[in-house]
Amino acid sequence: MSDTIVFTRGVPADESFPSERLAECAAAALRGPDAVRVMQYGKSWGYPPLREWLAARHGVRPEQVMLANGSLQFVEFVAWAYLQPGDTVFVEVPTYDRAITLLRRHRANIVGIPLEADGPDMAALERALQNATPRFFYIIPDFQNPSGATASLEKRQRLVELARAHGFFFVEDAPYRPLRYRGEPLPSLYDLGPDVTLQMSSFTKQISPGVRVGYLIGDEARLTPIAKVAEDTYIMPNHLGAAAVNEFCRRGWLDEQLRFLHDLYRPRLEAVCDAIRTYLPDADWIEPDGGFFVSVTLPEGVTSEALRAAAREQGLILGDGRAFFVNPADGERFLRLPFCALTPDELREGVRRLAAAVQALQQTSA
Amino acid sequence: MSDTIVFTRGVPADESFPSERLAECAAAALRGPDAVRVMQYGKSWGYPPLREWLAARHGVRPEQVMLANGSLQFVEFVAWAYLQPGDTVFVEVPTYDRAITLLRRHRANIVGIPLEADGPDMAALERALQNATPRFFYIIPDFQNPSGATASLEKRQRLVELARAHGFFFVEDAPYRPLRYRGEPLPSLYDLGPDVTLQMSSFTKQISPGVRVGYLIGDEARLTPIAKVAEDTYIMPNHLGAAAVNEFCRRGWLDEQLRFLHDLYRPRLEAVCDAIRTYLPDADWIEPDGGFFVSVTLPEGVTSEALRAAAREQGLILGDGRAFFVNPADGERFLRLPFCALTPDELREGVRRLAAAVQALQQTSA
Repeated sequence: MSDTIVFTRGVPADESFPSERLAECAAAALRGPDAVRVMQYGKSWGYPPLREWLAARHGVRPEQVMLANGSLQFVEFVAWAYLQPGDTVFVEVPTYDRAITLLRRHRANIVGIPLEADGPDMAALERALQNATPRFFYIIPDFQNPSGATASLEKRQRLVELARAHGFFFVEDAPYRPLRYRGEPLPSLYDLGPDVTLQMSSFTKQISPGVRVGYLIGDEARLTPIAKVAEDTYIMPNHLGAAAVNEFCRRGWLDEQLRFLHDLYRPRLEAVCDAIRTYLPDADWIEPDGGFFVSVTLPEGVTSEALRAAAREQGLILGDGRAFFVNPADGERFLRLPFCALTPDELREGVRRLAAAVQALQQTSA
Repeated sequence: MSDTIVFTRGVPADESFPSERLAECAAAALRGPDAVRVMQYGKSWGYPPLREWLAARHGVRPEQVMLANGSLQFVEFVAWAYLQPGDTVFVEVPTYDRAITLLRRHRANIVGIPLEADGPDMAALERALQNATPRFFYIIPDFQNPSGATASLEKRQRLVELARAHGFFFVEDAPYRPLRYRGEPLPSLYDLGPDVTLQMSSFTKQISPGVRVGYLIGDEARLTPIAKVAEDTYIMPNHLGAAAVNEFCRRGWLDEQLRFLHDLYRPRLEAVCDAIRTYLPDADWIEPDGGFFVSVTLPEGVTSEALRAAAREQGLILGDGRAFFVNPADGERFLRLPFCALTPDELREGVRRLAAAVQALQQTSA
């Protein structure tokens, strides 16, 4: 166990990467009959064989699948294609900090919908819809980043009804969906409302961030302006990563890899949850069944800066929870704990130190 | 020879790609001691070993080199980092159509500086500088896309003086610089004025578009805001392509590949130039010593649409030259002829058909 425990990195575990298999796949793609297509320019929609494989896996047509340099960039493309400065966008609060940054760059009017353990606060959403109809709702229904929350089936159904009734669509960010370590999957927003949903995901958490292969699934007519933006921006996403991933998937290795990840990450999820129950028994927290994150809301009076300073005293590096909030001050007591890139022992020790830091703070302020 | 000759594709020749060598390199990168770094998240500046190799090759520090998903995306990043809506940007006229599209998206005030066979019209540039100082000048000094023009040493020196005097910088797009098939290279704007230049290039024309590895060289302080924009947009560019390219370069294969490309493309350049002299003896055209493009300005009275229709009659597909002009009407008679992805025989036959189409048009209008 390293001396300092770093609780900030929402990244896959170094030991999770199937490097040898990906080496075989990359070489096979460049030695196979499609090598020239891998090497040459192509359309902004991305490498066709991987689009075809994803289409079959998701039960859609290849024309409904687009690839990009990771999935975050789709938020940028959607903003260029669908937002004018001042347009309203809904997000969950808290939400993925990089999405807030991108939407701000496009001068969107960002309206935060408070998040509960089972998804958006629907009463708050309905109130917000009385004030404005968003162009879209950026939402992470499964094992949400940063909270770990998963929207219930009832809320998903109601969300789709509301989108249809009010005329907005969802940008459903779903990179953690394949990473359910226990319990049964729920239908995605795309499953329930393909007419009102663009679903983003990527191979970042399934295989590797370094290949930079994100994908977007949706109605072809809704994707077409996004593909034009992509072409204008970078001509096309990388083929080599996509072709290597394509080979990996077609050999049946993705499902093996997902089983391996489940076996690697499930004990980590259990360790962090057990540690929270043990060391922070009164905590207000969200317990997920998958993904990368557990979140804790600390007691009244704690501030983000004071907590991080107290944690450093304990040999613990924490992230700043305020970045995940549209109004940063609302995140003073919010803490995201990424659990996949730490071992169970590190997770237990990290949460123990966190509890000690909180206790030290409370004694100081008492 | 295929029946129809397509004179629109500014792409590398399919037969130019070192697929087998890149397969070895990709596999080696994923099997080597740096495999975890290739697979994992990294900084938005891109895969460090390739930045280090490029720095040594260009005589700069690694902190002065940034990678991206191809080089076009740097124009977008530079625009986000340095342009406010309404800011002035200078471009050559004609220039790379995709740069115009990107700058328009950022609501830049685009001022076109007429291009001559030896670079920008300096008198026009000085007049334009009396009206406005651009934030930057997007310029392609070597084997320009679309014209094939190369700026003279005298103009390069004067350009750098003007940038220093007026307080703007160059975005020097230099992807064709390594593809000089005859004659001696001139210093780049970056060589002459590193303090006033960001130099973009990529491995697209040197190795493969499919790897999507562009690079930007410049002052670290000027790159830092661009790297922040890149991080906010897509976290980081792909590592797999960069790591494969890095291995390729460090094995000494890039220089071998460039010699191979010179030998492949030189006869194509000579064939297209000879054909223009033979079949269009009165043409107003620019003869380059490298790159991908020759350009022809057709006689008065020819329009882009009529020419393309007449060419189709001859079994020849031509591009629309108007896209390369800030004011599209100025490009009615402009024709870009990409010569790298056609064989010498196809090039001769293509120019013969072009001459026949022009003649047919002139007879119609006479």
